[in-house]
Amino acid sequence: MQEPALVLYSDSSPNGFKITIALEVLGLPYRLVHVDIDRGEHRQADFLALNPAGRIPVLVDHSAGVVLFESAAILLYLAQRSGQLLEQAAQPRWATITWLMYHSASVGPVLGQRVHFECFEAIANPAAQKRYRSLSEDAFGVLDQHLASHLWLAGEAYSIADIAHFAWLHIAQIVGFDFTAYRHLTRWYRQVQMRPAVQRGIRLPAPATGP
Amino acid sequence: MQEPALVLYSDSSPNGFKITIALEVLGLPYRLVHVDIDRGEHRQADFLALNPAGRIPVLVDHSAGVVLFESAAILLYLAQRSGQLLEQAAQPRWATITWLMYHSASVGPVLGQRVHFECFEAIANPAAQKRYRSLSEDAFGVLDQHLASHLWLAGEAYSIADIAHFAWLHIAQIVGFDFTAYRHLTRWYRQVQMRPAVQRGIRLPAPATGP
Repeated sequence: MQEPALVLYSDSSPNGFKITIALEVLGLPYRLVHVDIDRGEHRQADFLALNPAGRIPVLVDHSAGVVLFESAAILLYLAQRSGQLLEQAAQPRWATITWLMYHSASVGPVLGQRVHFECFEAIANPAAQKRYRSLSEDAFGVLDQHLASHLWLAGEAYSIADIAHFAWLHIAQIVGFDFTAYRHLTRWYRQVQMRPAVQRGIRLPAPATGP
Repeated sequence: MQEPALVLYSDSSPNGFKITIALEVLGLPYRLVHVDIDRGEHRQADFLALNPAGRIPVLVDHSAGVVLFESAAILLYLAQRSGQLLEQAAQPRWATITWLMYHSASVGPVLGQRVHFECFEAIANPAAQKRYRSLSEDAFGVLDQHLASHLWLAGEAYSIADIAHFAWLHIAQIVGFDFTAYRHLTRWYRQVQMRPAVQRGIRLPAPATGP
Protein backbone atom coordinates (compact mmCIF):
# COMPACT_ATOMS: atom_id res chain seq x y z
CA MET A 1 0.00 0.00 0.00
CA GLN A 2 1.28 3.44 -0.88
CA GLU A 3 2.29 5.74 1.98
CA PRO A 4 -0.03 8.79 2.11
CA ALA A 5 1.60 12.10 1.16
CA LEU A 6 0.39 13.68 4.41
CA VAL A 7 1.83 12.65 7.76
CA LEU A 8 0.43 14.26 10.92
CA TYR A 9 2.39 14.18 14.16
CA SER A 10 -0.06 14.81 16.97
CA ASP A 11 -1.33 13.99 20.44
CA SER A 12 -4.72 14.32 22.18
CA SER A 13 -4.72 18.09 22.71
CA PRO A 14 -6.68 21.12 21.54
CA ASN A 15 -4.14 22.10 18.91
CA GLY A 16 -3.86 18.52 17.70
CA PHE A 17 -7.63 18.08 17.41
CA LYS A 18 -7.84 21.12 15.12
CA ILE A 19 -5.92 19.17 12.50
CA THR A 20 -7.47 15.74 12.99
CA ILE A 21 -10.89 17.39 12.66
CA ALA A 22 -9.84 19.25 9.49
CA LEU A 23 -8.34 16.14 7.91
CA GLU A 24 -11.47 14.14 8.74
CA VAL A 25 -13.69 16.85 7.23
CA LEU A 26 -11.61 16.93 4.07
CA GLY A 27 -11.39 13.15 3.81
CA LEU A 28 -7.73 13.36 2.86
CA PRO A 29 -5.63 10.21 3.33
CA TYR A 30 -3.00 10.73 6.01
CA ARG A 31 -0.85 8.78 8.39
CA LEU A 32 -1.18 9.72 12.06
CA VAL A 33 1.95 9.47 14.18
CA HIS A 34 1.20 9.65 17.90
CA VAL A 35 3.79 11.88 19.61
CA ASP A 36 3.24 10.94 23.25
CA ILE A 37 3.85 14.14 25.22
CA ASP A 38 3.44 12.38 28.57
CA ARG A 39 6.41 10.23 27.57
CA GLY A 40 8.43 13.26 26.40
CA GLU A 41 8.43 12.23 22.74
CA HIS A 42 8.03 15.91 21.70
CA ARG A 43 11.51 16.53 23.16
CA GLN A 44 13.25 13.82 21.13
CA ALA A 45 15.72 14.84 18.42
CA ASP A 46 13.78 13.41 15.49
CA PHE A 47 10.71 15.41 16.45
CA LEU A 48 12.67 18.60 17.20
CA ALA A 49 14.12 18.33 13.69
CA LEU A 50 10.56 18.82 12.40
CA ASN A 51 9.59 21.53 14.90
CA PRO A 52 12.38 23.20 16.88
CA ALA A 53 9.76 24.50 19.33
CA GLY A 54 8.92 20.90 20.26
CA ARG A 55 5.17 21.16 19.94
CA ILE A 56 2.48 19.21 18.21
CA PRO A 57 0.86 19.31 15.69
CA VAL A 58 3.33 19.00 12.83
CA LEU A 59 2.20 18.19 9.29
CA VAL A 60 4.54 16.92 6.60
CA ASP A 61 3.34 16.94 3.00
CA HIS A 62 5.78 14.65 1.22
CA SER A 63 4.22 15.47 -2.16
CA ALA A 64 5.23 19.14 -1.80
CA GLY A 65 8.33 18.82 0.39
CA VAL A 66 6.68 21.02 2.99
CA VAL A 67 6.99 20.70 6.78
CA LEU A 68 4.59 22.81 8.81
CA PHE A 69 4.11 23.45 12.48
CA GLU A 70 1.61 25.68 14.32
CA SER A 71 -2.00 24.59 14.03
CA ALA A 72 -3.16 27.78 12.29
CA ALA A 73 -0.47 27.44 9.61
CA ILE A 74 -1.51 23.83 9.05
CA LEU A 75 -5.21 24.77 8.82
CA LEU A 76 -4.40 27.47 6.24
CA TYR A 77 -2.31 24.97 4.29
CA LEU A 78 -4.98 22.28 4.26
CA ALA A 79 -7.59 24.85 3.19
CA GLN A 80 -5.42 26.04 0.33
CA ARG A 81 -4.44 22.50 -0.71
CA SER A 82 -8.07 21.30 -0.76
CA GLY A 83 -9.89 24.46 -1.79
CA GLN A 84 -12.26 23.85 1.13
CA LEU A 85 -13.04 25.38 4.55
CA LEU A 86 -11.87 28.84 3.40
CA GLU A 87 -13.96 30.70 0.88
CA GLN A 88 -12.41 32.31 -2.19
CA ALA A 89 -14.37 35.58 -2.17
CA ALA A 90 -12.48 38.35 -0.40
CA GLN A 91 -14.95 39.19 2.35
CA PRO A 92 -15.63 35.70 3.76
CA ARG A 93 -12.03 34.66 3.09
CA TRP A 94 -10.55 37.46 5.18
CA ALA A 95 -13.24 37.16 7.83
CA THR A 96 -12.18 33.52 8.20
CA ILE A 97 -8.50 34.42 8.46
CA THR A 98 -9.22 37.27 10.89
CA TRP A 99 -11.20 35.01 13.25
CA LEU A 100 -8.61 32.24 12.91
CA MET A 101 -5.92 34.73 13.94
CA TYR A 102 -8.07 35.97 16.83
CA HIS A 103 -8.18 32.37 17.98
CA SER A 104 -4.44 31.83 17.61
CA ALA A 105 -3.32 35.03 19.30
CA SER A 106 -6.04 35.43 21.93
CA VAL A 107 -8.51 32.62 22.59
CA GLY A 108 -6.00 29.76 22.42
CA PRO A 109 -3.26 31.42 24.52
CA VAL A 110 -5.73 32.72 27.10
CA LEU A 111 -7.43 29.34 27.56
CA GLY A 112 -4.01 27.67 27.60
CA GLN A 113 -2.82 29.91 30.43
CA ARG A 114 -6.10 29.42 32.30
CA VAL A 115 -5.69 25.64 32.05
CA HIS A 116 -2.15 25.98 33.33
CA PHE A 117 -3.03 28.07 36.38
CA GLU A 118 -6.28 26.27 37.23
CA CYS A 119 -5.24 22.69 36.52
CA PHE A 120 -1.48 22.27 36.53
CA GLU A 121 0.22 24.83 38.81
CA ALA A 122 1.41 23.06 41.97
CA ILE A 123 1.04 26.15 44.17
CA ALA A 124 -2.24 28.01 43.68
CA ASN A 125 -1.80 31.48 42.17
CA PRO A 126 -5.17 33.21 42.73
CA ALA A 127 -4.16 36.46 41.00
CA ALA A 128 -3.10 34.64 37.85
CA GLN A 129 -6.20 32.42 37.99
CA LYS A 130 -8.36 35.51 38.23
CA ARG A 131 -6.55 37.19 35.33
CA TYR A 132 -6.97 34.29 32.91
CA ARG A 133 -10.53 33.60 34.01
CA SER A 134 -11.36 37.23 33.30
CA LEU A 135 -9.57 37.22 29.94
CA SER A 136 -11.31 34.01 28.89
CA GLU A 137 -14.70 35.45 29.87
CA ASP A 138 -13.86 38.47 27.69
CA ALA A 139 -13.07 36.14 24.79
CA PHE A 140 -16.26 34.12 25.30
CA GLY A 141 -18.16 37.41 25.27
CA VAL A 142 -16.59 38.55 21.99
CA LEU A 143 -17.35 35.21 20.33
CA ASP A 144 -20.89 35.14 21.75
CA GLN A 145 -21.69 38.62 20.51
CA HIS A 146 -20.34 37.80 17.05
CA LEU A 147 -22.24 34.51 16.86
CA ALA A 148 -25.47 36.27 17.84
CA SER A 149 -25.64 37.52 14.23
CA HIS A 150 -23.50 34.97 12.38
CA LEU A 151 -24.25 31.29 11.84
CA TRP A 152 -20.53 30.45 11.72
CA LEU A 153 -17.56 32.58 12.71
CA ALA A 154 -16.84 33.72 9.17
CA GLY A 155 -20.54 34.11 8.30
CA GLU A 156 -22.41 31.75 6.03
CA ALA A 157 -19.94 28.88 5.74
CA TYR A 158 -18.31 26.52 8.23
CA SER A 159 -14.57 27.13 8.07
CA ILE A 160 -11.15 26.57 9.61
CA ALA A 161 -11.99 29.41 12.05
CA ASP A 162 -14.81 27.29 13.50
CA ILE A 163 -12.61 24.20 13.72
CA ALA A 164 -9.83 26.07 15.55
CA HIS A 165 -12.19 27.56 18.12
CA PHE A 166 -14.13 24.36 18.61
CA ALA A 167 -11.04 22.32 19.47
CA TRP A 168 -10.10 24.63 22.33
CA LEU A 169 -13.68 25.02 23.59
CA HIS A 170 -13.97 21.23 23.62
CA ILE A 171 -11.05 21.15 26.07
CA ALA A 172 -12.52 24.07 28.03
CA GLN A 173 -15.70 22.05 28.43
CA ILE A 174 -13.78 18.92 29.50
CA VAL A 175 -11.84 20.77 32.21
CA GLY A 176 -14.98 22.52 33.45
CA PHE A 177 -14.67 26.08 32.14
CA ASP A 178 -18.39 26.75 31.93
CA PHE A 179 -19.52 28.83 28.94
CA THR A 180 -23.18 27.78 28.85
CA ALA A 181 -24.23 31.31 29.91
CA TYR A 182 -23.05 32.46 26.47
CA ARG A 183 -26.03 31.14 24.58
CA HIS A 184 -24.99 32.02 21.03
CA LEU A 185 -21.56 30.51 21.62
CA THR A 186 -23.24 27.43 23.09
CA ARG A 187 -25.63 27.16 20.11
CA TRP A 188 -22.64 27.30 17.76
CA TYR A 189 -20.62 24.84 19.89
CA ARG A 190 -23.41 22.24 19.75
CA GLN A 191 -23.76 22.65 15.99
CA VAL A 192 -20.05 22.03 15.47
CA GLN A 193 -19.99 19.20 18.00
CA MET A 194 -22.66 17.15 16.21
CA ARG A 195 -20.73 17.00 12.94
CA PRO A 196 -19.48 13.45 12.32
CA ALA A 197 -15.98 14.55 11.23
CA VAL A 198 -15.64 16.51 14.46
CA GLN A 199 -16.63 13.48 16.48
CA ARG A 200 -13.97 11.44 14.68
CA GLY A 201 -11.33 14.17 14.99
CA ILE A 202 -11.62 14.56 18.77
CA ARG A 203 -10.86 10.86 19.22
CA LEU A 204 -7.53 10.89 17.34
CA PRO A 205 -5.14 9.64 18.55
CA ALA A 206 -7.43 9.22 21.61
CA PRO A 207 -10.15 11.25 23.38
CA ALA A 208 -8.91 13.97 25.71
CA THR A 209 -9.21 13.38 29.42
CA GLY A 210 -9.22 15.95 32.20
CA PRO A 211 -5.97 17.04 33.82
CA MET B 1 -6.91 64.80 -2.83
CA GLN B 2 -8.32 61.32 -3.04
CA GLU B 3 -8.75 59.38 0.20
CA PRO B 4 -6.41 56.34 0.18
CA ALA B 5 -8.16 52.96 -0.05
CA LEU B 6 -6.32 51.72 3.04
CA VAL B 7 -7.07 53.12 6.49
CA LEU B 8 -5.06 51.83 9.46
CA TYR B 9 -6.34 52.27 13.00
CA SER B 10 -3.38 51.91 15.31
CA ASP B 11 -1.43 53.08 18.35
CA SER B 12 2.22 52.90 19.40
CA SER B 13 2.38 49.22 20.32
CA PRO B 14 4.10 46.05 19.12
CA ASN B 15 1.10 44.84 17.17
CA GLY B 16 0.54 48.27 15.66
CA PHE B 17 4.17 48.63 14.57
CA LYS B 18 3.96 45.36 12.62
CA ILE B 19 1.52 47.04 10.25
CA THR B 20 3.11 50.49 10.05
CA ILE B 21 6.41 48.76 9.21
CA ALA B 22 4.77 46.60 6.53
CA LEU B 23 2.95 49.55 4.97
CA GLU B 24 6.17 51.59 4.95
CA VAL B 25 8.07 48.70 3.32
CA LEU B 26 5.40 48.30 0.67
CA GLY B 27 5.10 52.04 0.05
CA LEU B 28 1.32 51.77 -0.11
CA PRO B 29 -0.66 54.98 0.42
CA TYR B 30 -2.71 54.77 3.62
CA ARG B 31 -4.37 57.00 6.15
CA LEU B 32 -3.30 56.43 9.75
CA VAL B 33 -5.96 56.94 12.43
CA HIS B 34 -4.47 57.15 15.92
CA VAL B 35 -6.65 55.14 18.33
CA ASP B 36 -5.40 56.44 21.68
CA ILE B 37 -5.56 53.48 24.05
CA ASP B 38 -4.52 55.58 27.05
CA ARG B 39 -7.65 57.64 26.44
CA GLY B 40 -9.83 54.53 26.03
CA GLU B 41 -10.57 55.16 22.35
CA HIS B 42 -10.35 51.40 21.65
CA ARG B 43 -13.46 50.98 23.82
CA GLN B 44 -15.61 53.47 21.91
CA ALA B 45 -18.54 52.19 19.88
CA ASP B 46 -17.24 53.29 16.48
CA PHE B 47 -14.02 51.36 17.01
CA LEU B 48 -15.76 48.29 18.48
CA ALA B 49 -17.88 48.21 15.32
CA LEU B 50 -14.64 47.54 13.40
CA ASN B 51 -13.16 45.11 15.93
CA PRO B 52 -15.49 43.68 18.59
CA ALA B 53 -12.42 42.63 20.60
CA GLY B 54 -11.46 46.31 20.95
CA ARG B 55 -7.84 45.97 19.92
CA ILE B 56 -5.58 47.70 17.47
CA PRO B 57 -4.48 47.31 14.71
CA VAL B 58 -7.47 47.34 12.39
CA LEU B 59 -7.09 47.77 8.63
CA VAL B 60 -9.93 48.77 6.35
CA ASP B 61 -9.47 48.36 2.60
CA HIS B 62 -12.23 50.46 1.11
CA SER B 63 -11.35 49.28 -2.40
CA ALA B 64 -12.24 45.67 -1.46
CA GLY B 65 -14.85 46.27 1.24
CA VAL B 66 -12.68 44.33 3.70
CA VAL B 67 -12.25 45.06 7.42
CA LEU B 68 -9.46 43.14 9.14
CA PHE B 69 -8.26 42.91 12.68
CA GLU B 70 -5.43 40.85 14.21
CA SER B 71 -1.95 41.87 13.09
CA ALA B 72 -1.13 38.49 11.51
CA ALA B 73 -4.29 38.56 9.40
CA ILE B 74 -3.43 42.09 8.26
CA LEU B 75 0.15 41.09 7.39
CA LEU B 76 -1.11 38.13 5.34
CA TYR B 77 -3.59 40.44 3.59
CA LEU B 78 -1.01 43.09 2.73
CA ALA B 79 1.37 40.40 1.45
CA GLN B 80 -1.31 38.93 -0.78
CA ARG B 81 -2.51 42.36 -1.98
CA SER B 82 1.02 43.50 -2.89
CA GLY B 83 2.64 40.22 -3.91
CA GLN B 84 5.54 41.12 -1.60
CA LEU B 85 6.98 39.95 1.75
CA LEU B 86 5.64 36.40 1.22
CA GLU B 87 7.22 34.26 -1.46
CA GLN B 88 5.11 32.35 -3.96
CA ALA B 89 7.07 29.08 -3.99
CA ALA B 90 5.59 26.52 -1.59
CA GLN B 91 8.57 25.96 0.69
CA PRO B 92 9.48 29.58 1.55
CA ARG B 93 5.81 30.58 1.51
CA TRP B 94 4.79 28.03 4.13
CA ALA B 95 7.96 28.57 6.14
CA THR B 96 6.96 32.25 6.34
CA ILE B 97 3.41 31.42 7.42
CA THR B 98 4.64 28.83 9.95
CA TRP B 99 7.02 31.31 11.61
CA LEU B 100 4.39 34.05 11.49
CA MET B 101 1.99 31.73 13.30
CA TYR B 102 4.68 30.77 15.82
CA HIS B 103 4.98 34.46 16.54
CA SER B 104 1.22 35.00 16.87
CA ALA B 105 0.50 32.02 19.07
CA SER B 106 3.69 31.87 21.14
CA VAL B 107 6.22 34.70 20.99
CA GLY B 108 3.70 37.55 21.02
CA PRO B 109 1.44 36.16 23.78
CA VAL B 110 4.40 35.10 25.95
CA LEU B 111 6.11 38.50 25.70
CA GLY B 112 2.76 40.18 26.24
CA GLN B 113 2.17 38.28 29.47
CA ARG B 114 5.75 38.93 30.58
CA VAL B 115 5.26 42.67 30.02
CA HIS B 116 2.04 42.51 32.02
CA PHE B 117 3.54 40.74 35.04
CA GLU B 118 6.88 42.59 35.02
CA CYS B 119 5.68 46.09 34.16
CA PHE B 120 1.99 46.53 34.89
CA GLU B 121 0.83 44.26 37.72
CA ALA B 122 0.27 46.37 40.84
CA ILE B 123 1.10 43.52 43.23
CA ALA B 124 4.23 41.58 42.31
CA ASN B 125 3.54 37.98 41.29
CA PRO B 126 6.95 36.27 41.35
CA ALA B 127 5.65 32.86 40.21
CA ALA B 128 3.96 34.36 37.15
CA GLN B 129 7.00 36.55 36.42
CA LYS B 130 9.20 33.48 36.55
CA ARG B 131 6.87 31.51 34.28
CA TYR B 132 6.78 34.14 31.52
CA ARG B 133 10.47 34.91 31.82
CA SER B 134 11.20 31.23 31.35
CA LEU B 135 8.77 30.89 28.43
CA SER B 136 10.24 33.96 26.72
CA GLU B 137 13.76 32.59 27.16
CA ASP B 138 12.53 29.37 25.52
CA ALA B 139 11.16 31.38 22.60
CA PHE B 140 14.37 33.42 22.25
CA GLY B 141 16.26 30.12 22.19
CA VAL B 142 14.07 28.66 19.43
CA LEU B 143 14.47 31.79 17.30
CA ASP B 144 18.21 31.98 17.97
CA GLN B 145 18.79 28.38 16.98
CA HIS B 146 16.77 28.84 13.79
CA LEU B 147 18.56 32.08 12.87
CA ALA B 148 21.94 30.40 13.36
CA SER B 149 21.40 28.77 9.97
CA HIS B 150 18.91 31.13 8.30
CA LEU B 151 19.50 34.72 7.23
CA TRP B 152 15.82 35.59 7.77
CA LEU B 153 13.13 33.61 9.55
CA ALA B 154 11.72 32.10 6.36
CA GLY B 155 15.18 31.60 4.82
CA GLU B 156 16.54 33.68 1.98
CA ALA B 157 14.03 36.53 1.89
CA TYR B 158 12.90 39.15 4.39
CA SER B 159 9.21 38.56 5.05
CA ILE B 160 6.16 39.32 7.17
CA ALA B 161 7.50 36.74 9.68
CA ASP B 162 10.53 38.98 10.31
CA ILE B 163 8.38 42.09 10.63
CA ALA B 164 6.04 40.45 13.17
CA HIS B 165 8.88 39.22 15.37
CA PHE B 166 10.85 42.45 15.11
CA ALA B 167 7.97 44.59 16.34
CA TRP B 168 7.64 42.61 19.57
CA LEU B 169 11.40 42.31 20.12
CA HIS B 170 11.65 46.08 19.69
CA ILE B 171 9.28 46.46 22.65
CA ALA B 172 11.14 43.73 24.59
CA GLN B 173 14.32 45.76 24.12
CA ILE B 174 12.62 49.00 25.21
CA VAL B 175 11.26 47.47 28.43
CA GLY B 176 14.60 45.82 29.19
CA PHE B 177 14.08 42.15 28.37
CA ASP B 178 17.68 41.43 27.49
CA PHE B 179 18.23 39.04 24.58
CA THR B 180 21.79 40.02 23.66
CA ALA B 181 23.06 36.62 24.86
CA TYR B 182 21.24 35.12 21.87
CA ARG B 183 23.76 36.21 19.29
CA HIS B 184 22.04 34.97 16.14
CA LEU B 185 18.79 36.57 17.23
CA THR B 186 20.70 39.76 17.99
CA ARG B 187 22.46 39.69 14.59
CA TRP B 188 19.05 39.35 12.91
CA TYR B 189 17.48 42.03 15.12
CA ARG B 190 20.14 44.56 14.16
CA GLN B 191 19.75 43.77 10.47
CA VAL B 192 16.01 44.36 10.63
CA GLN B 193 16.41 47.45 12.81
CA MET B 194 18.66 49.26 10.32
CA ARG B 195 16.12 49.10 7.50
CA PRO B 196 14.72 52.57 6.75
CA ALA B 197 11.09 51.39 6.51
CA VAL B 198 11.42 49.78 9.94
CA GLN B 199 12.77 53.01 11.39
CA ARG B 200 9.79 54.87 9.95
CA GLY B 201 7.28 52.23 11.07
CA ILE B 202 8.31 52.23 14.73
CA ARG B 203 7.62 55.97 14.93
CA LEU B 204 3.97 55.74 13.78
CA PRO B 205 1.87 57.16 15.28
CA ALA B 206 4.72 57.86 17.76
CA PRO B 207 7.75 56.02 19.16
CA ALA B 208 7.03 53.57 21.97
CA THR B 209 8.07 54.53 25.45
CA GLY B 210 8.67 52.28 28.43
CA PRO B 211 5.81 51.42 30.77
